[in-house]
Amino acid sequence: MNPENLFHLIARPIERESIRYTPAGIPVISARLWHRSQQMESGTNRNVEFEMPAIAIGDISKEFEKLSSDSFYLFKGFMATKSAKSRSLVFHITGISSIE
Amino acid sequence: MNPENLFHLIARPIERESIRYTPAGIPVISARLWHRSQQMESGTNRNVEFEMPAIAIGDISKEFEKLSSDSFYLFKGFMATKSAKSRSLVFHITGISSIE
Repeated sequence: MNPENLFHLIARPIERESIRYTPAGIPVISARLWHRSQQMESGTNRNVEFEMPAIAIGDISKEFEKLSSDSFYLFKGFMATKSAKSRSLVFHITGISSIE
Repeated sequence: MNPENLFHLIARPIERESIRYTPAGIPVISARLWHRSQQMESGTNRNVEFEMPAIAIGDISKEFEKLSSDSFYLFKGFMATKSAKSRSLVFHITGISSIE
């Protein structure tokens, strides 16, 4: 069994970069996502608000590029470090759904 | 609808602190989780390995305290910033399942 690493986040894409290409020709887009919600924790509602770095690699980067920065979407994917040497975590987006 | 923020991670608890109590008497435990997996991205398997900060607030902190640091568990919860002023993200654990 491959260990689960599954993140679902409804967020708005902000600070989007242009698509770049890896040496192998794979399209990549980096962005920041903005999220705000209330989450239930220990019987009370916690106000949650953050920005987080995200990356979309492959065909999904083209889909990401077309998103409106005024709208919210459901992003699905997994967490990973920015690089092998880095400890910073980045949300790797592998699926995008409209919610509006 | 409350915006989704859902993280599922199979990981091993490392660097666990002792339970502390908030001024309101709520138990809290902070820890780091270690994860390693392969995730499918753009048609290829990406090796993923990281440590991330986590926190368990309320009754679940007592459950977390009993976990073995030699075992893997499925943690469920949401992402939030460390504090209102911080941009660092922490995994807030609201559910723990045994997987072994």
